[in-house]
Amino acid sequence: MATTALLIFDLVGTFAFALNGALTALRATRLDIVGVVTLGMITALGGGAIRDIFLDSLPPATFLDWRYLAVAASGGLIVFFAGHRLERINRAINVLDAAGLSLFAVTGALKAAGLGFGPAQAIIVGTITAVGGGTLRDVLTGRVPSVLSSGLYAVPALIGATAVVIAELLGIRGPIATGGAAALCFVIRMVGVHFDVNAPVPPGSPPAKDG
Amino acid sequence: MATTALLIFDLVGTFAFALNGALTALRATRLDIVGVVTLGMITALGGGAIRDIFLDSLPPATFLDWRYLAVAASGGLIVFFAGHRLERINRAINVLDAAGLSLFAVTGALKAAGLGFGPAQAIIVGTITAVGGGTLRDVLTGRVPSVLSSGLYAVPALIGATAVVIAELLGIRGPIATGGAAALCFVIRMVGVHFDVNAPVPPGSPPAKDG
Amino acid sequence: MATTALLIFDLVGTFAFALNGALTALRATRLDIVGVVTLGMITALGGGAIRDIFLDSLPPATFLDWRYLAVAASGGLIVFFAGHRLERINRAINVLDAAGLSLFAVTGALKAAGLGFGPAQAIIVGTITAVGGGTLRDVLTGRVPSVLSSGLYAVPALIGATAVVIAELLGIRGPIATGGAAALCFVIRMVGVHFDVNAPVPPGSPPAKDG
Repeated sequence: MATTALLIFDLVGTFAFALNGALTALRATRLDIVGVVTLGMITALGGGAIRDIFLDSLPPATFLDWRYLAVAASGGLIVFFAGHRLERINRAINVLDAAGLSLFAVTGALKAAGLGFGPAQAIIVGTITAVGGGTLRDVLTGRVPSVLSSGLYAVPALIGATAVVIAELLGIRGPIATGGAAALCFVIRMVGVHFDVNAPVPPGSPPAKDG
Repeated sequence: MATTALLIFDLVGTFAFALNGALTALRATRLDIVGVVTLGMITALGGGAIRDIFLDSLPPATFLDWRYLAVAASGGLIVFFAGHRLERINRAINVLDAAGLSLFAVTGALKAAGLGFGPAQAIIVGTITAVGGGTLRDVLTGRVPSVLSSGLYAVPALIGATAVVIAELLGIRGPIATGGAAALCFVIRMVGVHFDVNAPVPPGSPPAKDG
Repeated sequence: MATTALLIFDLVGTFAFALNGALTALRATRLDIVGVVTLGMITALGGGAIRDIFLDSLPPATFLDWRYLAVAASGGLIVFFAGHRLERINRAINVLDAAGLSLFAVTGALKAAGLGFGPAQAIIVGTITAVGGGTLRDVLTGRVPSVLSSGLYAVPALIGATAVVIAELLGIRGPIATGGAAALCFVIRMVGVHFDVNAPVPPGSPPAKDG
């Protein structure tokens, strides 16, 4: 796909995660402007930094390119000044997280494929890119990461990354393939959130209390 | 030592840590198949990834080589489907952790030595490789890492790595030297667990309640 | 500035953070000599390791150079044997943390500038180097990182790094410029601690209870 389209997908994902991370910070106690913007930026840029460690593509693109830094900082600042209104719409956190997850799953996988890594590695890197920022966010705020605890979180990222890698192998490129794979991930994630769908639990586990 | 033997030691360590991480996940609440397999894989592959960052040997070997991925995923899946029986044998978690610790201490140190790093660096990297995966496991599940809190955890890894580096310097190579160093680490760790041995506490500290 | 002066600043910062991390470990329960020294070393060397990942300057300098390892280990051991006296001076933890923060903000920024990175990247890397070790310390001991929760922590680091980068751009080099920028950061941090100054909180936030 065109580099420009890929960049746009990546920046939109960065913005979504910055809003999400900053909103998460708002809900914590006594976080000031630095805490809100910092958590937004780490959530937005962390997945890409981990991706670039795995791809031996250091220094991280998200750190070298001012556009990522500006978009991530803007997202944090917007939430700081206007987020106490958005916060009432608790759903915003989930939607933005799903958007970042979807976009990073496909852009991470495509970056790996573009660098010549194999399909399995591209799928894994896409998934790591997608869940990495949120995992840092959760670790820094003292919560069990979504990727471990919550229903369908890594699974949609894995499906989105797999879809875009298969499309790439079949020669189907361009914004439509990428957007379709991201949309697939997004829908699965939101359906999972809405209906509280979970991946299978171990055989013999007691039923969840609120299931 | 022969590369094949080193690979086998490394894969066995990977498998042990995957079982250990997945069993740890099983004991947490409501972790589904993704959480169990993910925590198994992070525990199994995380130490090697941190090692390769320190050795500037990116992309991480555990991520490029399908055998590591397959072994780690298998360990997680086995625990998911059969672990609720194993879980009764609580001791299994400790034994598997000690096995992974021992094998990674020696293979991590040998990888560093093989890349031309000095003895001190090789010992440090061996120790980091050994404790890295378990530290990620503990941070992600919200516990104080074993390496900080629990009696004799880093010490046996340090001894095992030192032993194999000294053997290497003396020209003693091969599976017996490696296996001996790993066994030394394993025995010290298990003795520490069994008798609740701790490293010295600061002078003037109040005695531990259950000591 | 002269490489020697930069090295000395860096080693003093390493020592300050090692003392700080080890004192933090002392206050935790049942940490033995390994836990105290390990947390001291991670606090002291972690920021530099993260810096070198961002600068693609692996293996980390703090790991290759025995002087960093020796200084960090010494700080941990001194606290282990003598820290229970120092611990009464609770203030020591804050002062040492501010010292490490200040020195690493300027040395981190200068290392980035020296490698040819732009001013924005140098400032960001200086800040990350300054707050990185303390963030690892807080995550490993299960606390919300200072960089997120506490008044004026990242801000003085950002100011110190900016000051030294501006000085560098103006051609003002040498220990006085570096020392001045570090002192600026230190004073702002200590004033913030003393008067419990905080960065602005989100509009509409309830007033802090103890503010």
